[in-house]
Amino acid sequence: MLLHLSTWTEVETYLGHSKGIILPIGSTEQHGPTGLIGTDAICAEAVAKGVGEATQALVGPTINVGMALHHTAFPGSMSLRPSTLILVITEYITCLAKAGFQRFFFINGHGGNMATLKAAFSQTYDYLANFNLEVRCQTANWFMCRSVYQLAKELYGDGEGSHATPSEVALTQYIYPEAIKHYPLSETVASGYPIYSAANFRRDYPDGRMGSNPALATPEHGQQFYELAVKELSNAYLEFINAQ
Amino acid sequence: MLLHLSTWTEVETYLGHSKGIILPIGSTEQHGPTGLIGTDAICAEAVAKGVGEATQALVGPTINVGMALHHTAFPGSMSLRPSTLILVITEYITCLAKAGFQRFFFINGHGGNMATLKAAFSQTYDYLANFNLEVRCQTANWFMCRSVYQLAKELYGDGEGSHATPSEVALTQYIYPEAIKHYPLSETVASGYPIYSAANFRRDYPDGRMGSNPALATPEHGQQFYELAVKELSNAYLEFINAQ
Amino acid sequence: MLLHLSTWTEVETYLGHSKGIILPIGSTEQHGPTGLIGTDAICAEAVAKGVGEATQALVGPTINVGMALHHTAFPGSMSLRPSTLILVITEYITCLAKAGFQRFFFINGHGGNMATLKAAFSQTYDYLANFNLEVRCQTANWFMCRSVYQLAKELYGDGEGSHATPSEVALTQYIYPEAIKHYPLSETVASGYPIYSAANFRRDYPDGRMGSNPALATPEHGQQFYELAVKELSNAYLEFINAQ
Amino acid sequence: MLLHLSTWTEVETYLGHSKGIILPIGSTEQHGPTGLIGTDAICAEAVAKGVGEATQALVGPTINVGMALHHTAFPGSMSLRPSTLILVITEYITCLAKAGFQRFFFINGHGGNMATLKAAFSQTYDYLANFNLEVRCQTANWFMCRSVYQLAKELYGDGEGSHATPSEVALTQYIYPEAIKHYPLSETVASGYPIYSAANFRRDYPDGRMGSNPALATPEHGQQFYELAVKELSNAYLEFINAQ
Amino acid sequence: MLLHLSTWTEVETYLGHSKGIILPIGSTEQHGPTGLIGTDAICAEAVAKGVGEATQALVGPTINVGMALHHTAFPGSMSLRPSTLILVITEYITCLAKAGFQRFFFINGHGGNMATLKAAFSQTYDYLANFNLEVRCQTANWFMCRSVYQLAKELYGDGEGSHATPSEVALTQYIYPEAIKHYPLSETVASGYPIYSAANFRRDYPDGRMGSNPALATPEHGQQFYELAVKELSNAYLEFINAQ
Amino acid sequence: MLLHLSTWTEVETYLGHSKGIILPIGSTEQHGPTGLIGTDAICAEAVAKGVGEATQALVGPTINVGMALHHTAFPGSMSLRPSTLILVITEYITCLAKAGFQRFFFINGHGGNMATLKAAFSQTYDYLANFNLEVRCQTANWFMCRSVYQLAKELYGDGEGSHATPSEVALTQYIYPEAIKHYPLSETVASGYPIYSAANFRRDYPDGRMGSNPALATPEHGQQFYELAVKELSNAYLEFINAQ
Repeated sequence: MLLHLSTWTEVETYLGHSKGIILPIGSTEQHGPTGLIGTDAICAEAVAKGVGEATQALVGPTINVGMALHHTAFPGSMSLRPSTLILVITEYITCLAKAGFQRFFFINGHGGNMATLKAAFSQTYDYLANFNLEVRCQTANWFMCRSVYQLAKELYGDGEGSHATPSEVALTQYIYPEAIKHYPLSETVASGYPIYSAANFRRDYPDGRMGSNPALATPEHGQQFYELAVKELSNAYLEFINAQ
Repeated sequence: MLLHLSTWTEVETYLGHSKGIILPIGSTEQHGPTGLIGTDAICAEAVAKGVGEATQALVGPTINVGMALHHTAFPGSMSLRPSTLILVITEYITCLAKAGFQRFFFINGHGGNMATLKAAFSQTYDYLANFNLEVRCQTANWFMCRSVYQLAKELYGDGEGSHATPSEVALTQYIYPEAIKHYPLSETVASGYPIYSAANFRRDYPDGRMGSNPALATPEHGQQFYELAVKELSNAYLEFINAQ
Repeated sequence: MLLHLSTWTEVETYLGHSKGIILPIGSTEQHGPTGLIGTDAICAEAVAKGVGEATQALVGPTINVGMALHHTAFPGSMSLRPSTLILVITEYITCLAKAGFQRFFFINGHGGNMATLKAAFSQTYDYLANFNLEVRCQTANWFMCRSVYQLAKELYGDGEGSHATPSEVALTQYIYPEAIKHYPLSETVASGYPIYSAANFRRDYPDGRMGSNPALATPEHGQQFYELAVKELSNAYLEFINAQ
Repeated sequence: MLLHLSTWTEVETYLGHSKGIILPIGSTEQHGPTGLIGTDAICAEAVAKGVGEATQALVGPTINVGMALHHTAFPGSMSLRPSTLILVITEYITCLAKAGFQRFFFINGHGGNMATLKAAFSQTYDYLANFNLEVRCQTANWFMCRSVYQLAKELYGDGEGSHATPSEVALTQYIYPEAIKHYPLSETVASGYPIYSAANFRRDYPDGRMGSNPALATPEHGQQFYELAVKELSNAYLEFINAQ
Repeated sequence: MLLHLSTWTEVETYLGHSKGIILPIGSTEQHGPTGLIGTDAICAEAVAKGVGEATQALVGPTINVGMALHHTAFPGSMSLRPSTLILVITEYITCLAKAGFQRFFFINGHGGNMATLKAAFSQTYDYLANFNLEVRCQTANWFMCRSVYQLAKELYGDGEGSHATPSEVALTQYIYPEAIKHYPLSETVASGYPIYSAANFRRDYPDGRMGSNPALATPEHGQQFYELAVKELSNAYLEFINAQ
Repeated sequence: MLLHLSTWTEVETYLGHSKGIILPIGSTEQHGPTGLIGTDAICAEAVAKGVGEATQALVGPTINVGMALHHTAFPGSMSLRPSTLILVITEYITCLAKAGFQRFFFINGHGGNMATLKAAFSQTYDYLANFNLEVRCQTANWFMCRSVYQLAKELYGDGEGSHATPSEVALTQYIYPEAIKHYPLSETVASGYPIYSAANFRRDYPDGRMGSNPALATPEHGQQFYELAVKELSNAYLEFINAQ
């Protein structure tokens, strides 16, 4: 059940039997010469919809732009500053908490969002306590699902890398087969550098990939990743909302 | 050309011949008992994609949650505070301006965003001037296109109202025919009250509609609205980016 | 009754029979080679005092500096950023709401304030709801009074323009006849350009006027505008505070 | 020369021979049962205008609402939070500094503003350094002029007190003789309590006065205070703008 | 009793008989060629510990970095902006106030903190009132103790100056005899310039001292200052927490 | 070399041969019935000083209060909100970066700081890029050193837990043997609950410990942990500042 395709009376009914909501969060950032700029948002949204269907949970609107400041030296990348993203998260949750939602399950497609999400949750709990509202938030990274991770290692070995990975590229290929990109990738790919500023990132990772070989991706792999992630996160969601 | 389905190298190429980008902005808010909560985002995104295709323009990610504080007494509505939305807009534009974009065309689906967008543009111009960046922003409300407005008046007369209107409902029916809602609407509908707080709004407009009769909407109307809006805003976009 | 010329015990008495207050808001910005930099504040304050006298309403202190970032390339112009002006408005209203005021009627002299005022009202309603305070705010632009507008068209036709207009200049001449400026104006005047950054504004509107011919203004006209605005806004104020 | 009664071209001319500007800052707060709520703004503005005339200096718009949170338990009092007032001061100065002003002389009518002004100046210097702008700011409290202070002690002795003082009340009586208030004051007046929260303040100082006997004030005294303050601050202003 | 060397159960016990806490606040800033960068924090912390011992009061963690923007042109100086320091102070107090503390005694080692502390207290009172919390805060500057001041005048005369003073240097020598610095000081020392920006400060005070001769300091003096400050502030603390 | 015990001229000299600085960051929060509230700050500061000595690095002032909102239902706990801590970190680094420092090594004693530190670094890089400053930051958690972790597992097995751990308690016992607490601990200890709000945390972890048995700690263990951490982080620091 998608919030965007529901009416407020349907939400009212939903709240009669569930206090949980799923919020997809991605990013708008370079994913190497062949990865889509929307990769993280596309993956998070698709997996979230799948989990919503499997668990009858409500799925809210996708946060398309996350914390990707380190990618902004590549054109087309967009980012909020962490302190702004904290405000955004706090305000999303506050609106929904005042309406009766109590459990917020963020399905996340971007590693760079994790720290800010965690900080935002702490700040939100503290803020809502002023108004005697108590909620619980959880980040669920689809790419860190055990089953997803294992398949990626199996299929790609070291070629999985850590950004513009074949697993995420495969998932976007499954979702948008019409947007599969063909572009020659250099054989060598930078890897292992720590992440500092955007300028530094671009110097260290000149084509945007971090140790990955996205040429290994196929739409069929993408379907496998999708199904594994939906299954694993559906269980995680149910556990989350059913916990005392 | 959708930013989310592009690579950074494609964006680099695009910047070689255009400095313009389209950014859809909607809202996540109640639209009466039969209107979708995502109506404003759905409409803005659909029209923006249409304009992008017609003009070869790049279309960025949709801002799904806008300024809808006055709707938040209805469950499922979400909003940013104006000062947060100003930050979000400023940071979107700043990232893109540093990459070379100069003209930002916001296709907007929600009247409640207009004031904050205007304020945000002023604040962004002033901020970017600190770094010798100069850009231009414009808000284009699809529902205020002259052709759209005329058709709505013709088809619905006073039944168009001003929120949860049959024209916007029709457009969502055209885009998501599977999500057409059937729910009995009271014959009388509140109208004419000024907008103050969320609690006040819900008291004045108990089912969320403002003077509208969305039961008049059909998907066929929706297609007409879509085509008129795309045509009119495509011209507006071209005029905007071609202005000296 | 001017708040600045009242005591707190008088305000306490006033609150016993009225919950309304008028707040004048202007701007400090260039108004062409012959218009006063304080034009918008002067006009708003004068009209507000007139309305206060006519309706026995309390009139608060004038907000002298508003949102005029686009004028700041002309020396002497001052502006708050929209997000700061939102804070200012919120804090003004919060102080007064905690003391018992419930209806805030902003008499505004500057078009550039309108968007930010609207955003500020939304943000304030939402903030005060946290403390179970509910207020109503309204912007009343003296220059958009129907009677004012009609007289301006009658007297000046196209020469009214949209900034540094003869109608506002006339009003300042009526209030400060000793400050009537004589300075040769070029016959041609820029008009029709959209407003972007301050630098852009100054390039497009090199002497600061927007399509206006303030040389047409006279103090006698000013008196007429004053009387029309006071009359029309007095009615508007009474309607506002008497509404259920 | 008042900024509000000047044109931008006159300001441009002024900047050709002076980089200084005077900014009056007051407050909107209770001043006991007979003192005007606008006392601090009225006094600061009047003295500033006097200094402007005596020194040919430009006088900007009055900041009517300052930092008076501790007075807000009395109706009609208004205040900005210190962090908001810091933003306001920073933005006023920034606009003017970009236009070429370099010396900012704040004539202040309210002790409660002093700390925030000082903090604001530090923050502004630091902010402007980012853009290679260097300015100087000074707070000049008219009520702390040596000559003013001496006359007050002479005329009123201990009755001067520290808030709603006869000296400031006298100055408002001189400026607004039509607004002299007659209201019986209790013979005993609270004094000596430290200032904490607004609620605490009202408990400690139930009628708003702090150790003062404003019944001693006369308009003639007010004129004397005015003349002493203008003379002393005119010298201070000239010294400030002429310093290397 | 040091908060950092206590457990939460000990704090709970403490709150059973006292609602007061001492918070040391210093700065991290240049203190001339021979003064320690930590001087203000070291002194505030040492005196606070002494007062804590003498009065059985709880002593919280030292705020090491304060408001020292004007010193930041000298390497090693660090500062918060006033608006950030206000947030820090507000959040410190809020945490402790929610736990039951009501009286906050800031032992301060840096003149530059005073204005921002005062502003922060006002803002905190106002914020906490939203949650029906009422607290009292006081700044106690060890270097402004009457007894300290008198001894400094006696020992150093004009050589005390106003920054990098022999009295504060002496106190650090008493606390850290192993960190006594020997560095030739020029015989002439700048003094009397007002404080503006960091760049301006360094131009006016090229070696960082303000009219002081820290070569006069000895560890023995330091002990005397320590004892005087502890005695005087212990009395001040007891008076503060015992006041109605 | 401690910044607080250095002069600005010594810092200037230091910058001639190193651009690195170590910043200890801890927390002020409950550590169970026997752990010190200052545990995280004490440990971070001690290890940082050790690393500073071993590597000749400059060590800045300790950030005593970090992000511990979830502990604030226990008296004596203090916390900054994440968005405030981000400001604090940004401003610390900005001051030092403008003075010439380029590598910032944060030795951290509290898991709850990690997310906010990471967010703060991203925001700082982005901010400094506006002024053409490029720096590198790294978080080094002493308790996550491989050697520390291994020894803890060896000595305590599951009794290490994840908060108020015997390893951190041991380290504080080594540093402050006079502050070893004796208090009966319940045999059962809560563990495994996720961290949400402060109220929730206290319900789940009623005595503040998370699965740990701090009764196992000894000062001798503390010395071992200290030496291991100093050694491992000294290597990490040198690697960090020597990296290209």
